[in-house]
Amino acid sequence: MKIKAFIAILACMVVATPTAALHHTQTSRSVSPAAAKTLVERLGYPPDTKLLIVHADDLGMAHSINIASIKGLETGLVSSASIMIPCSWLPEIAAYARTHPEADLGLHLTLTSEWSLYRWGPVLGKERVPSLLDSGGYFYPTETEAAAHIDPKEAEAEIRAQIARARALGIQPTHLDSHMGTLYQNQALFETLFRVAHDNKLLIRVSKEWFAVAPFLPSLLGPDDVVVNSVISIEPNVTAEGWSKYYADAIKNLQPGLTEMIVHLAYDDEEMRGVAFAHPNWGSEWRQRDFQFVTSEAFRKLLQENNVKLVTWREVGRLMKKS
Amino acid sequence: MKIKAFIAILACMVVATPTAALHHTQTSRSVSPAAAKTLVERLGYPPDTKLLIVHADDLGMAHSINIASIKGLETGLVSSASIMIPCSWLPEIAAYARTHPEADLGLHLTLTSEWSLYRWGPVLGKERVPSLLDSGGYFYPTETEAAAHIDPKEAEAEIRAQIARARALGIQPTHLDSHMGTLYQNQALFETLFRVAHDNKLLIRVSKEWFAVAPFLPSLLGPDDVVVNSVISIEPNVTAEGWSKYYADAIKNLQPGLTEMIVHLAYDDEEMRGVAFAHPNWGSEWRQRDFQFVTSEAFRKLLQENNVKLVTWREVGRLMKKS
Repeated sequence: MKIKAFIAILACMVVATPTAALHHTQTSRSVSPAAAKTLVERLGYPPDTKLLIVHADDLGMAHSINIASIKGLETGLVSSASIMIPCSWLPEIAAYARTHPEADLGLHLTLTSEWSLYRWGPVLGKERVPSLLDSGGYFYPTETEAAAHIDPKEAEAEIRAQIARARALGIQPTHLDSHMGTLYQNQALFETLFRVAHDNKLLIRVSKEWFAVAPFLPSLLGPDDVVVNSVISIEPNVTAEGWSKYYADAIKNLQPGLTEMIVHLAYDDEEMRGVAFAHPNWGSEWRQRDFQFVTSEAFRKLLQENNVKLVTWREVGRLMKKS
Repeated sequence: MKIKAFIAILACMVVATPTAALHHTQTSRSVSPAAAKTLVERLGYPPDTKLLIVHADDLGMAHSINIASIKGLETGLVSSASIMIPCSWLPEIAAYARTHPEADLGLHLTLTSEWSLYRWGPVLGKERVPSLLDSGGYFYPTETEAAAHIDPKEAEAEIRAQIARARALGIQPTHLDSHMGTLYQNQALFETLFRVAHDNKLLIRVSKEWFAVAPFLPSLLGPDDVVVNSVISIEPNVTAEGWSKYYADAIKNLQPGLTEMIVHLAYDDEEMRGVAFAHPNWGSEWRQRDFQFVTSEAFRKLLQENNVKLVTWREVGRLMKKS
């Protein structure tokens, strides 16, 4: 499969449904003696434990997203989240991060600006990173346009600046991931992301499922990197009525090892409807449905009944450094 | 009176109440033959006509502000408005400007970012305009801090970039004004503003009331500049209960000539409450009250009963160019 197909898959943050996914129980590529134990065992759990990071994306993008995601984190059913540094609502979530140092907050490294009426651009000056910008002076709207134009050196400078800005605001990120998968679009961008992550001793969201479409990926991993078995992320073809069933099936089909479930939380309110104007995919109703599901008693019960243990990127990262 | 006091007055966008204001009927400083006629006469009205620009500030700052201001413009009781180019909701109001070329939209030149949880920075790269930025990399929160740090050359580059960006997005501004009065803080910034306005053949919001505290102002005016008699802008000491009475008194006390009434429109919704968190002055309830007043039948009736004629900056600007 070409990287192009991989791009298409990641572009939508759509991965194979859990039943179709490759279910590896070995969660580290390393074959060093330390890796004789699985990741789950190294984290101190019996080898058949099903570990899940329930992760809210896009914090900082909008007030509606911030308050719904904070609510999600505070129910205890969302275990992790990541922040978009270039967006105007960053100060609100940075204030939360400073007063809630226990919250598992990473950085949702941002090189795209996907909505039509509400947009943002780089932390660095536009003169410094021209290849990241569309004709309107904002980030490109799609990850494919972004990847087609981005000079990886400028992407590297920008994501280093996003990390520096986060730290300057008192955010101590527990992990990194890539908004809309832009940094997962080709080998040069993946190399950039790993170089920056390694320099900052931060884990990255990477799934073993991606190896088949990005065969270079294993060669980029360092000894401390963690690869999740699979990523659960709901697809645009799931109907509103099928929402809970999709997640319920995903939880029931979880395999031993570490899985990440990506959700997008917001309220279906006037602001979010404005942000996602004419864009139902990942729009305001979508995010309200995700919010309702992950804060529901039904979700809590599903996790219990299926013996799923929620974990954080901080927990995973801390143990990795000891291994 | 020192400029400092003038700063304090403009800082709050608080001007003398209409009854206390200096009421000049001569609205142009020029003593050239063309100015033998008053501005009102040159606009084609009898000399005792009371002309009013009802002006909504801060468009582009938030979705709540955009939709309430558009509603205000569409009632016909708000005659003009101005746009903040650096803010993330600019694309929404730019789209409106492109599809409503008749709307009287100017630029609310922006060099401050005043809220705590929701912020923005310059159109130009941060490396290009370091004097405009606070330690967080955003514009300074207050106009006094901004004026104390700003290199006027950098302010000039930034506001030229804001005008260029507006035009690139299809906005044809009818006038200029200054968010939080930052460009009205001292002579150097006023000179910058006039130079840029003259180069772009755009009128600026300037009130004759300001001459007493900024005696250099008349010397900066070009032959086509227009000076309004007074500016009506509600003050923080007006209670919610006194809101309508304040405006009613202002309308009843209007004098012949051109007056500008500045309003700040938004809904008291979740987004606006987040933007103006812990800041009731110019906050969400304030803006909801302004919205309710300027879209009310009571306001329409007041204008009719007091023979007030609403005009736009486009109308004023077009006639000035003929004079």
